[in-house]
Amino acid sequence: MWQWLLVKILNSLIRKDALAVRMPDGTLHRFGADGAEPVTIHIHDMDTVRRLVLNPDLAVGEAYMDGRMTIDDDELHRFLRLATRNADASAGSTLRGIMVFMRMLARNFAQYNPMGRARANASHHYDLSGELYDLFLDADKQYSCAYFRSPNNSLEQAQADKKAHIARKLLLEPGQSVLDIGCGWGGMGLTLARDFGARVTGVTLSTEQQAVARRRAKSEGLEDRAEFHLMDYREVTGRFDRIVSVGMFEHVGVPHYREYFRNVRERLAEDGVALIHTIGRSTPPGFTNPWITRYIFPGGYVPAMSEAMEAIQKEGLIVADVEVLRLHYADTLRHWYNRFMANIDRAREIYDDRFCRMWRYYLAASEVGFREGVQVVFQFQLCRKVDAVPLTRDYLYSGPPSARKKPKPARDRQTA
Amino acid sequence: MWQWLLVKILNSLIRKDALAVRMPDGTLHRFGADGAEPVTIHIHDMDTVRRLVLNPDLAVGEAYMDGRMTIDDDELHRFLRLATRNADASAGSTLRGIMVFMRMLARNFAQYNPMGRARANASHHYDLSGELYDLFLDADKQYSCAYFRSPNNSLEQAQADKKAHIARKLLLEPGQSVLDIGCGWGGMGLTLARDFGARVTGVTLSTEQQAVARRRAKSEGLEDRAEFHLMDYREVTGRFDRIVSVGMFEHVGVPHYREYFRNVRERLAEDGVALIHTIGRSTPPGFTNPWITRYIFPGGYVPAMSEAMEAIQKEGLIVADVEVLRLHYADTLRHWYNRFMANIDRAREIYDDRFCRMWRYYLAASEVGFREGVQVVFQFQLCRKVDAVPLTRDYLYSGPPSARKKPKPARDRQTA
Repeated sequence: MWQWLLVKILNSLIRKDALAVRMPDGTLHRFGADGAEPVTIHIHDMDTVRRLVLNPDLAVGEAYMDGRMTIDDDELHRFLRLATRNADASAGSTLRGIMVFMRMLARNFAQYNPMGRARANASHHYDLSGELYDLFLDADKQYSCAYFRSPNNSLEQAQADKKAHIARKLLLEPGQSVLDIGCGWGGMGLTLARDFGARVTGVTLSTEQQAVARRRAKSEGLEDRAEFHLMDYREVTGRFDRIVSVGMFEHVGVPHYREYFRNVRERLAEDGVALIHTIGRSTPPGFTNPWITRYIFPGGYVPAMSEAMEAIQKEGLIVADVEVLRLHYADTLRHWYNRFMANIDRAREIYDDRFCRMWRYYLAASEVGFREGVQVVFQFQLCRKVDAVPLTRDYLYSGPPSARKKPKPARDRQTA
Repeated sequence: MWQWLLVKILNSLIRKDALAVRMPDGTLHRFGADGAEPVTIHIHDMDTVRRLVLNPDLAVGEAYMDGRMTIDDDELHRFLRLATRNADASAGSTLRGIMVFMRMLARNFAQYNPMGRARANASHHYDLSGELYDLFLDADKQYSCAYFRSPNNSLEQAQADKKAHIARKLLLEPGQSVLDIGCGWGGMGLTLARDFGARVTGVTLSTEQQAVARRRAKSEGLEDRAEFHLMDYREVTGRFDRIVSVGMFEHVGVPHYREYFRNVRERLAEDGVALIHTIGRSTPPGFTNPWITRYIFPGGYVPAMSEAMEAIQKEGLIVADVEVLRLHYADTLRHWYNRFMANIDRAREIYDDRFCRMWRYYLAASEVGFREGVQVVFQFQLCRKVDAVPLTRDYLYSGPPSARKKPKPARDRQTA
């Protein structure tokens, strides 16, 4: 019966591209557009068939992790693209409608992230072995969307350009104080301290990240200008000339958006500038895929622009600019995926096979989401005073690229 | 009693700057911050006092128009700034809360703009004597926010730069079709046809605007490349490579936002680009000031970014970029105000004194709203495909300014 149901569901679901499914009983079923070259998956047991029928959003990823559903190696991205492109088709069904409604109701619980839970959520992801991240990130450990001035640029170049682009948006001057909310392993904060002469306060909820960031600050002799604290953004006090927050807002959760932007406003100097860099959905508000919530980012949510804007407006911040980075994260994730796969043997030594499949699925699914335009990246430039930022965006793009990429060392600037 | 009430209200309302009120009985009352130099208004009759108590949002503008409330000439902007800065203070009162709630409820009726009503609304404003607009606009009749690359630029330069900036955002190539929703007197459409070789279809609901636009197209020999129709945006059929809409979305009304963006999507080619330029509020959703609704823009509403975004997301358009032009409209409006005042004698010959005071109040109040940051301008760049627009915004800012300001004539380009 479960197999009959799955065939029936896939028949109505798959409209674009084509899918072939080898069932546990050995039969092969084909779905989708005539003439399209199908991507083939193998389902190895009937229990998996049942779970795919009952809770596909969770079961597809789990079946892949567990090896109960296999896909030819090179086909993972193609399979995920097919799943993404056909996701809309199910929107009309009553069952799907009920499920979406239930999940929207559950958002407030799934994304209820008070301080203790926020710390546990962060720890789940970021306290994984530091070495794991070394297997796919650049040496600076930039774990967020890079900025490809050209699609052929290296990941290292694109991450450096990302930091430089954000620094420009912050209109940073030597000696200014910067709060970095969700500072990661310190890459952004150290760059702002080293290359722009900023006094940086970074906060993270990951002990692993804090330890790495502090070690790096010490080894670079930047301890007096870049400090990193194990602290919730809601615990920070004082005022800062600039606030930067890259790839952290995804962990905040809709019920906390006003709290987040209230903290940004209260921590920001009267003539200050804040730059919030976050993944965004180009679709209306929704819910987080349950597989992502369970295995990758507990408590996480990717905002629609309207959701972030509602909170920003209510907290009295002025939006000075919104850049929408499209496809940059797809390219970033492809670099990460390729590096991870090149180091898969070492990854298997640190974790087990199941973990490695989970991580591959996460990187591939994320890439496909950005490649298809379902997800993008928002850079919100915010301020309290309407004249805190120049009249035009010329300042972001003026000057030769070399001057942009290689700012003078902070010391020269301060004495100049 | 009414005078006693007004004094009581102003006492609790005015916290920033200072106001002095000469009442009909000759008494002078002072409100606001100690030490601040007060702006002085004169209220000439008790009926006006009563109306200011009962419905201040409408009555202030009406009293000014009617000459029942006078302000020293140079003080109009200062008075409006004081009113704007103290508007927040009333937010806490119960009475104000009820009024706001009622007005929010009434939004759907006030902004219900089906085709017939939309035409009447447009006619109300734009079918005013063409000569009136000549008294304060530039020769090209750009009746929307200019783009000041430098605050010292002339209005003419800033309006030309606005059109060039928008043309760049449209990524226009010679021969492409452009739909201009709310084409005004044809300035934008004629520029795109003349300087960029576009085939332009402009629509307006104002017979006066259409007649002027057609006359200009004919006199410039652009009739075959720029046609202007008296038509609602909902009546347009076909597909266009590019869609531009400058200063028209303010007339759409919240109940029609989805209809508007659905039309944009349906009229836009698969790989097309649209640029919507509109006034925006930097505050949460609200209602239109009733004086503005009654005398200036019936059916009009200035959106919060979240309101526009909700409709954009639901209609499946991808937001490629959002520029927030702050203060540019304040400078534009100051130019318009100064030109209008320089031509006030001619304005009085066309209309009466009351109309001239109404127009002055409208221009001054608008400027103050932008100067204080309550209002800004949004430029939404929209597309259907995630790769319709380049990866970075470099294309908007590259090349020497001279090349940007003086694009080659369309003919040269087409044969190149």
